[in-house]
Parts: sequence; C-alpha cells; structure tokens
Amino acid sequence: MITTNRQILFDRAPIGPLTSDSFRLVRSNMPEPRDGEVLLKSLYLSIDAARRAVMSGQAHEAALTPGTLMSGRAIAEVMQSRDLDFAVGDVVYGELGWQEYAAMPGKLLVKKPRLDPLSHLLSVYGVSGLTGYFGVLQVGEVKPEETILISAAAGAVGCFAGQIAKIAGCRTIGIAGSDEKCRWLTEELGFDAAVNYKSGAIADSLKACCPEGVDVYFDNVGGEILEAAISCLRPNGRIVCCGVLSAYDGGEPNQGVRGVPFQLIVKGLTMRGFRVPQFAAQHGEALVQMRSWVEDGRLKAAEDIVEGFENAPAAMISLLHGDNRGKRMVRLT
Amino acid sequence: MITTNRQILFDRAPIGPLTSDSFRLVRSNMPEPRDGEVLLKSLYLSIDAARRAVMSGQAHEAALTPGTLMSGRAIAEVMQSRDLDFAVGDVVYGELGWQEYAAMPGKLLVKKPRLDPLSHLLSVYGVSGLTGYFGVLQVGEVKPEETILISAAAGAVGCFAGQIAKIAGCRTIGIAGSDEKCRWLTEELGFDAAVNYKSGAIADSLKACCPEGVDVYFDNVGGEILEAAISCLRPNGRIVCCGVLSAYDGGEPNQGVRGVPFQLIVKGLTMRGFRVPQFAAQHGEALVQMRSWVEDGRLKAAEDIVEGFENAPAAMISLLHGDNRGKRMVRLT
Repeated sequence: MITTNRQILFDRAPIGPLTSDSFRLVRSNMPEPRDGEVLLKSLYLSIDAARRAVMSGQAHEAALTPGTLMSGRAIAEVMQSRDLDFAVGDVVYGELGWQEYAAMPGKLLVKKPRLDPLSHLLSVYGVSGLTGYFGVLQVGEVKPEETILISAAAGAVGCFAGQIAKIAGCRTIGIAGSDEKCRWLTEELGFDAAVNYKSGAIADSLKACCPEGVDVYFDNVGGEILEAAISCLRPNGRIVCCGVLSAYDGGEPNQGVRGVPFQLIVKGLTMRGFRVPQFAAQHGEALVQMRSWVEDGRLKAAEDIVEGFENAPAAMISLLHGDNRGKRMVRLT
Repeated sequence: MITTNRQILFDRAPIGPLTSDSFRLVRSNMPEPRDGEVLLKSLYLSIDAARRAVMSGQAHEAALTPGTLMSGRAIAEVMQSRDLDFAVGDVVYGELGWQEYAAMPGKLLVKKPRLDPLSHLLSVYGVSGLTGYFGVLQVGEVKPEETILISAAAGAVGCFAGQIAKIAGCRTIGIAGSDEKCRWLTEELGFDAAVNYKSGAIADSLKACCPEGVDVYFDNVGGEILEAAISCLRPNGRIVCCGVLSAYDGGEPNQGVRGVPFQLIVKGLTMRGFRVPQFAAQHGEALVQMRSWVEDGRLKAAEDIVEGFENAPAAMISLLHGDNRGKRMVRLT
C-alpha cells in the first residue's frame, strides 16, 4: 500500500529566468479525504508557461507563496470518494498542484470523459485547444482566404490556432524559434509557411513571407514580434492578444509595445485580449466541433509529453526556453 | 482689386514643442485658376493638433517639407470657376493649406451646403463631429446605462464624443486640463462628471470618480492617462483609440503604453483604432442624425474661433498647450 505522496514545492521566487532553485521535491504522507472530498491520483500534469508570471506575482491571480505546493492543473483519477457526485475511477480535471496524490473537495473538480488517450484532455480538448479555437474563430473572426500570422506557433496554443485557422480556410503563417519547428509546422500541421524568428530580423522575414500583409495576427508572445506584426498588418487588421511569452520568464509583462495606440489609429487596427473562461457558455459546442475534426484527421492533438513526476521542474524550465513542440505535460507513472 | 495672397509657410521642422519659429508669413501674387481649376477664398481654417505629427513626419501622411506652404483644411468660397461643376459662390471644403486664396482643381474639393453659420462645417458637421459620432457609436458601440470615460473631453473631438454619448444614454465622464474646462463640460455640455488631470494623480481621481470602473474609454491622448484608464476599465471593456495628443508636440507617438497587451488579456479588453474616412459610406446618415440633434438643442457646436489669418500659428501653438475649448478654427476676414 502506498503511504508516501511526492510533492514539488515552489521553494523560492525566481529572479530572472526560472531555474531548478525555485523548486524542491518533498515526501509527505498520503492525504486522507474528509467528508465531501475525494482522493485523487494525478495522471497528467499540465505544464504552462503563463504559470511563470504567477510565480512572480505578475499575473491576475495572487502570487504563489514560497514554501507552498507549486500550483498547476492536472488530469487525475478518483481513488476514493467521500463526495456522492464522484465514484472511484472517475476522471477529473482541476487545480491539484504538483503532487502525485491530492485530497480535494469534489466541488473544485470538473468531471471529464475517459478518452483514449487521456492526454487529449490537456491538449486539444483542454485550455490550449479551446484557446486556439476561440482565439481564431471568435476573437480573430477569421474569414476564408484571409492571411493569419501566429507567433509561438509551435507552442501549446499556437499549434491548435494554426490548424483551426487552416480548417477555417485561411492562409496560415507560423512564427517559431527553430528551423526544425518550422518544418514541423508546415510538414506535419499543415501551415502554409513558417518563419524562424531567430534566423534574421523578424520584420524583414515577415515582409518577405507576407508581402501583401496579414489580416489577423494571433499573438502569444508580445514584445518585438508583436511590434513587427503591427507593421505587417493590413488596414483594418485584427490582433488577437493571447499571451506574452516573451515577458514571462524574468521579463516585465506590463511593458508596452511601440506603435500602440498610434498605429492602431493610423491603420484602423483592433486589438483584443481574451481568456477561455469568458467563452464558458460555448465550451460544449467547441469541444463537439473539435472532436469531429480530430476524428477526421484534420486536427492533430500535438502533444509534448515528458515522463516522470520528478521531471516537472525541468519540463517547465525548458518550456520557457521554447524547447516544447505542442502542448507540454508530464505523465506520472 | 486684390492682388496679394498672404500665405503661411512651414518654415522649419520643430524640435520639441512647436513655436512660431516653424512658421513664416509671406505675400505672393494672387493665384490664377487654370482650366479645371477654381479660385477660392478661404473663410475658416481648421486648426488640428494631429497636424503637428505631420510636421515631424510621424503621421501616416508624408512629412511636410520645410519652406513649403503649411498644410491644413479649410472652408472656402468659389470666387472664379474654370470647372463646370463649380459656380461662383459655392462653398467648398478641402486641403487648401494656410493661405487666403488658392487655385485648385475642382476634383480635389468637396461641395458643402451654405449653412448658417458656416463654421459648423468644421466643427459639429466636420471631421471633429464625425469622429466623435463614429468613435462613440460604431467603434465604442456604447449601450445605454454604460459608463464612458473621455480624455481631452474639452477638445475638438472629445466635446462631441461626450455629448453624443449622453444622447446615447451613457453616464459620461470627461477628463480635461483645468477646473474651468471641467465646469464647462458639466454645466454647458451635459457631462455627468469631469476630472481635472492636473489636480492630482489621475489614477486616483478616476477611481474616486468611477468606483465601479468604466465600460468604454474614448482615448484622445495616449500616454499616462491611457495607462490609468486601462486600470479603470471593467472586464470586457473597450478602448476607442482616436488620438495621441500627449505625444504630438515633441513627443514620440509610437511609444508604447504599459499594460498593453498584458492587461488586455487579463481583463478581456478590446482596443480599436479608427479614422473617419473608413466610415465614409455612413457620413451622410451621420450628418442627418447630428443635424437633428443640433436643431433639437441636444448637441452644441462647441467652437473656439480665433480671428485673423495671421494668428493661425499662435492658434495652433496654444491649441497644443490645451488652450482651446471645443473645435478650434481661424476665421479669415
């Protein structure tokens, strides 16, 4: 019988880029569920770049407290239930933190279908997939034949945003940080073109790739790439503001970008930020739609799975360096 | 018979705030219209803060060339016509530059009705009024009961934006640079409240005035006031990007604002820039609508008229210091 629960603590706030010094692996006793709680075994841990901003207290959520459990979402299985709404074997999603087992009130959990593979619940059917879906279709309001440019296109959201834009009939251009990722985007995910932002001045590369400009820019990074994209947008173009990856790992997410608001006025641009919860009422229909695309083979559940709970800190650190390809998660064994 | 045409040249590009050194008054011969041209006498010269950015080559138009006629729009009367579409006495609007008389091709002019007073063609029925109209109703998409915040509210666009927002049923808050302007906004133009941004920290003043936040921010200024407004916006709020007054007079219009794009994502905000020409197809109906409001006494043609052609440079310099109240223009005598 298992008696030990491994946990990873957020040990100290990072200064500059995240390192393993911010984490500490500890062993504690197995938690015991109280009335209304369930005992959970984590199966997949979601590794999210935006969580880095929470570690520094720069996000909309409260800052993490050093010395406490590292926060994070996971897919888990119910091992024992003291909540009438949950049964042993149920698959759930929730904010379990970085630990192998958790005891939590059932009301904080969302029940999920037992898909095969379960990892899809964190990738294409998770926040990443939904973010790509709503960002492209509802915020970007793309139309067939339009050109869409997507930054961090090989990242957790970009890979879905690009595939969904293709399904919607757009010419789809990705920006990524290596030639290998660019090849993956065009050869595996169906992007029409991809630009390696490390292989030259991004503004020049974009001009060469999109000589007639772009209609929609799906921004996951902020910073200089956003500035270059603004100069590339056609009159009345749209910017979907989804993330600020360039600033999470020791940067300043609130730093402004040159050209805003002046270029918005000059070119009649619209810039719209969003998060998935604001579309909660439409999550159901989005998932039905995406499932049909996955089953047709038109939408790939691009996953980047790291094995072993103890590797979560390294998985997150290297994610912030752009080492992932698709949605990164940790599989617990 | 008049034989002299007074002109004001853009004599040298300003460095820092605009001074009279940038202008030079010269006398030239009366222009003579060629075939297809009309001879015009300027009646009202529009004085526009945004033209300052053109003087430094920071706008979307080409920079002005030192030593050439200062550019500017005017209302004028046809004195002599060699274009079959124009008759002596016609009132026209066009880019005549800063001069008393001009000979121009008729095709560059827009015929206007002979309203009384003609100054309304530059204020409420001109670009300023239309900018307020489309900015509030089409870009801001205001709904009754919403709270709208407007910067440079006593300026050429703000004064119309605020009155139109009131007509649309909004709670309307203005930001201006003196207590006297604030009184004018609330007592004469019907704003619900006004904040003097020079009388304390703007973020604090806004919080005190809009404790529940604002739904729409109509931005004429950019800079710190835009930053403060972003922190004041409610979730899913909208920013109407209309001007960057804070940067025109020796500043850097393309400098970014803190919080963009990060706060857009966190709060689900939309920021949309616009210029009046993009709504050209709807100008006619807008003017009909505004005329009915003016006739009902619900919309005041707030005008700030400076007498005398030779005072145009001083009128523009002091406009950039915020000395105007409503739409500034110069009346030629």
